[in-house]
Amino acid sequence: MVDGDPGEGDATVRRIDGHPFAPFQVVGEPQLLSAVRLLAPVLPSKVVAVGRNYADHVKEMGGEVDLDEPPVVFLKPSTSVVGPGDPVQYPVGVSDDVHYEGELAIVIARLCREVPVDRVRDVVLGFTCANDVTARDLQKTEKQWGRAKGFDTFCPLGPWVATDLDPADLAVTTTVNGELRQAGRTSQLIRGVDEVVAHVSQAMTLLPGDVILTGTPAGVGPLVVGDEVSVTIEGIGTLTNTVVARG
Amino acid sequence: MVDGDPGEGDATVRRIDGHPFAPFQVVGEPQLLSAVRLLAPVLPSKVVAVGRNYADHVKEMGGEVDLDEPPVVFLKPSTSVVGPGDPVQYPVGVSDDVHYEGELAIVIARLCREVPVDRVRDVVLGFTCANDVTARDLQKTEKQWGRAKGFDTFCPLGPWVATDLDPADLAVTTTVNGELRQAGRTSQLIRGVDEVVAHVSQAMTLLPGDVILTGTPAGVGPLVVGDEVSVTIEGIGTLTNTVVARG
Repeated sequence: MVDGDPGEGDATVRRIDGHPFAPFQVVGEPQLLSAVRLLAPVLPSKVVAVGRNYADHVKEMGGEVDLDEPPVVFLKPSTSVVGPGDPVQYPVGVSDDVHYEGELAIVIARLCREVPVDRVRDVVLGFTCANDVTARDLQKTEKQWGRAKGFDTFCPLGPWVATDLDPADLAVTTTVNGELRQAGRTSQLIRGVDEVVAHVSQAMTLLPGDVILTGTPAGVGPLVVGDEVSVTIEGIGTLTNTVVARG
Repeated sequence: MVDGDPGEGDATVRRIDGHPFAPFQVVGEPQLLSAVRLLAPVLPSKVVAVGRNYADHVKEMGGEVDLDEPPVVFLKPSTSVVGPGDPVQYPVGVSDDVHYEGELAIVIARLCREVPVDRVRDVVLGFTCANDVTARDLQKTEKQWGRAKGFDTFCPLGPWVATDLDPADLAVTTTVNGELRQAGRTSQLIRGVDEVVAHVSQAMTLLPGDVILTGTPAGVGPLVVGDEVSVTIEGIGTLTNTVVARG
């Protein structure tokens, strides 16, 4: 658990006893946030993602928004998840066009299925930042995105789960080496958090810790080895990862 | 562990001590196979599937085989896995065109990544039968297949893992209420077992118990509530499930 403003140098973290999906106790001495290494805040059994969910991103990909079309839903494997500060491994020799995609991620609190839109808040633990890293070249040549979005380390999550946050209108920004590349707001989501969870859970049971990515705004672009990529979401914090060549 | 010919009435099963991914001991008294309920033989962290991998199925779906095109790779969530005898739940009101797809499933034995074609046999535990149940209507209208192939119960696996089997040329048949619907041979796979595992593991780490579906031969077709669907693979056995309306 984080105490204080994580943006300030004196923010601290404390360990919890138990897991975050039920009432827990905060235990142990506070430690400076800057002195600890954070892991991914959740180990999802599955990561479900919704594509083409910001109009300006649909347009930059050469598409058009058609609200009669159903949302695009795909899965990323649990083996793609890494935490804040972990390297994103560039699969040199397999892809040469790996892109960042900054996104709001929903973390599920409890087992649920066929959740009505007006009950979604009951099944959500909170929100974190995600980078839906994508091998854009494979995404174009392979009809389904299992590999393009499924490489190891292609799903950074973190730095923590914000549990008391209204997701209706949050700034979502992505920077590469400090330069702004994406700047959207969750109010621009074609399908908002409630609709996304309802739609996914209409098909599949969601388990505690499962993660749903809500889509990326305009401004996607390539990463190269050595880049530092950061996804910042208002009210949550910043998820930063460095790109390395896959060994 | 199964002793005897599972096709005969006197086949028996015995419990193993430990898990099947390492040396184990067979313990307990033999029980008649017909007297026990088998669960899914594996609980995969992920199910990866290769589509369009039999030429005659590609043609029946209106496509053409182009060996220059990469394989179609998608994921099914672990929540879609059920065992032999478990019901397949028809999501009435969401889909009205649910199809069977009988397939050879590969079960992974150990953690691996970037497996060369000639080392694949070292990472495979064995093979089982799978039914890649698909909401064909959603598959056509939703660009990615996360929902169409991801409903709960849409991945029956079983009845067991055959660990000493050459997958090169096995008959794969599917029946509905005893009528033959699909009859292919694994020798017709466009990409065989070795190539499929190498291709998938080039992107993502595979964990013990992960499952890779190898694609379905021609003859896919609709199921209706009340149908009994069976996938039989030579040298493995028969996976039977009954279709019920989702409650």
